[in-house]
Amino acid sequence: MLFYKSRLVNFINSARFFTQTVHELIYREHGNPTEVLNLSSKELEVDTLEKQQVLVKWLASPVNPADINQIQGAYPIKPPNLPAVGGNEGCAQVIKAGSDVTEFRENDLVIPANAGLGTWCSHGIYDSKELFPIEGDVKDYMFLSMIQVNPSTAYRMLKDFVNLSSGDIVVQNGANSSVGHFVIQICRILGIQTINVVRDRPEIEQLKSQLKKDGADEVYTEDEFSTLYRTKEFKAKLALNCVGGKSGRHLSLALESGGTMVTYGGMSVSPVQVATSSLIFFNTKSVGFWISKWNGIKQNREERINMYRELIGWYKNGNLTLPKYQRRSFEEYKEAINQSTQTDPLTIKSKQIFTKKGNHHYFD
Amino acid sequence: MLFYKSRLVNFINSARFFTQTVHELIYREHGNPTEVLNLSSKELEVDTLEKQQVLVKWLASPVNPADINQIQGAYPIKPPNLPAVGGNEGCAQVIKAGSDVTEFRENDLVIPANAGLGTWCSHGIYDSKELFPIEGDVKDYMFLSMIQVNPSTAYRMLKDFVNLSSGDIVVQNGANSSVGHFVIQICRILGIQTINVVRDRPEIEQLKSQLKKDGADEVYTEDEFSTLYRTKEFKAKLALNCVGGKSGRHLSLALESGGTMVTYGGMSVSPVQVATSSLIFFNTKSVGFWISKWNGIKQNREERINMYRELIGWYKNGNLTLPKYQRRSFEEYKEAINQSTQTDPLTIKSKQIFTKKGNHHYFD
Repeated sequence: MLFYKSRLVNFINSARFFTQTVHELIYREHGNPTEVLNLSSKELEVDTLEKQQVLVKWLASPVNPADINQIQGAYPIKPPNLPAVGGNEGCAQVIKAGSDVTEFRENDLVIPANAGLGTWCSHGIYDSKELFPIEGDVKDYMFLSMIQVNPSTAYRMLKDFVNLSSGDIVVQNGANSSVGHFVIQICRILGIQTINVVRDRPEIEQLKSQLKKDGADEVYTEDEFSTLYRTKEFKAKLALNCVGGKSGRHLSLALESGGTMVTYGGMSVSPVQVATSSLIFFNTKSVGFWISKWNGIKQNREERINMYRELIGWYKNGNLTLPKYQRRSFEEYKEAINQSTQTDPLTIKSKQIFTKKGNHHYFD
Repeated sequence: MLFYKSRLVNFINSARFFTQTVHELIYREHGNPTEVLNLSSKELEVDTLEKQQVLVKWLASPVNPADINQIQGAYPIKPPNLPAVGGNEGCAQVIKAGSDVTEFRENDLVIPANAGLGTWCSHGIYDSKELFPIEGDVKDYMFLSMIQVNPSTAYRMLKDFVNLSSGDIVVQNGANSSVGHFVIQICRILGIQTINVVRDRPEIEQLKSQLKKDGADEVYTEDEFSTLYRTKEFKAKLALNCVGGKSGRHLSLALESGGTMVTYGGMSVSPVQVATSSLIFFNTKSVGFWISKWNGIKQNREERINMYRELIGWYKNGNLTLPKYQRRSFEEYKEAINQSTQTDPLTIKSKQIFTKKGNHHYFD
């Protein structure tokens, strides 16, 4: 059913080098991803690349909350047409490049230039402008598959809103999210202190220890923090908010005069709250950040290359580690989606990544 | 009781020109203003002015919400010592100036340089630095008495946060507040469109007509607006929020991409809400504004003089009108406070101003 091409056809195609069997998670309409997604296959003509085209093999493609929202139809980035392939992020290897392509050579690792490419598939042919180069001799495609969203979001929020120096304080909620994980580690590298807020859970002490091991200076539950901000002056220069609701308000009250709160997510599905006194009397501001938009701005290309160079350097020397993740085959897409949309706060979620797992032929 | 100096003493003082009887609304402790405020009198030595000192007679002093909060002890500006005189704003006439005072001459009209002066009194001696000059031949002390807070707040919010040009759109809630009144009128002068949100009330049509007469382009109740923002793209460049709560969220959703929401009050006593999507996907920002802080910044002096010149010009040529107000004597302070703290949304409040009313000797 799923692989409608017979082995015979694959054999013939393979012998002629005309087509490549592509496995892909596609949706024909917006809706609940576990209902509207389907794993299907098709044959892709691969020996007639146009001059600017590149044929790639996807090595790993994460599942991000934005991917889920996009399939639901509740995300500002929508596929130009349906059916569409799910997924916005991933790492691919160049198989073949058209005659006019100068940026990429065979075996180079690449990532999407922008969100919206459709990365939950085994292979694809793209215009070279749709792909972004990864410099140098990097082999770890698991890290590269997620570099475009989580570490980049953490990096840019720490670099682009306030001038942070060693000793400065950053406060964040959702500190055990993937972005939170990178915020803690990048701050440790830069000598910036982090105050981290997480939801309460049975294994809270274990989580606190883990975050401190990663470099967190202080870790509080939402409840602890909702009392503490009244008595303790946190004097944070920057607050990073991915929760919203009253959690955002408590962060705003931990800001020093003139500080900035950056919202990059809304896990609580409640509007961001900001303390009126923080805005009026302490001249703080509240802004938003969206890495997909930042990546799409042409003028950021040079800065983006520099950022990847620095992030990869930190990863290579062991200062950045991967967040907890789980390898998934495309066949397991329902489990991957369910795990990603799991809202039980008591579960430490693993990032779900579609990638080679066992002997799955589509990644060979 | 209230005037403990006898007529005889006043007569003697008056004959000697040594002292001036001062009537003042003072509080000895923080608390509910109608309980902790008292009208009292004292004799002020007036013939021994120091070189930099100025003796003034207060002509009119409004009651602002901040004055109430300050007496309650819930305001960031606190009197240096208790007992203290209430009030932060007003217009006074110079009676006599010390030998080194060059900025002010007898009969000049002045206003406080900063908040915290204590303006609910009949006379006072101040260092010349504590007073701010009003240029030119201005006689209307009722307008001047309120120029420091409401029209200035409206003016600065329209000038300092986004670049507004003729045809641009500003959306505001609390549109029938005193600041809202000036926002509508200044926008009309500058050719800027205003979308105005007010709380529902029985005489809503009357209020809508009044605001439209003042120059409002569109007027909606909170309820009307809470539905409209879903279907209509308001494309406001600037949102002015003095309510907070979900009203703020609706304003944030009426902003165009890159727009700014300025919070200057929190009438609902709920934290400001901002739509997460507005911050993240539409790159809006949420900031605060506090005119008392702005007035206190030395570098703003020149700009402040220019602002008053422009506001007074508009007032003189009839483009700015006073908001609805009510004259009050100091004896009526409980009524004035009660009227100012009235939270019944169905009442159109009048701004309360302590000033000459009938034959009250303290303003003669």
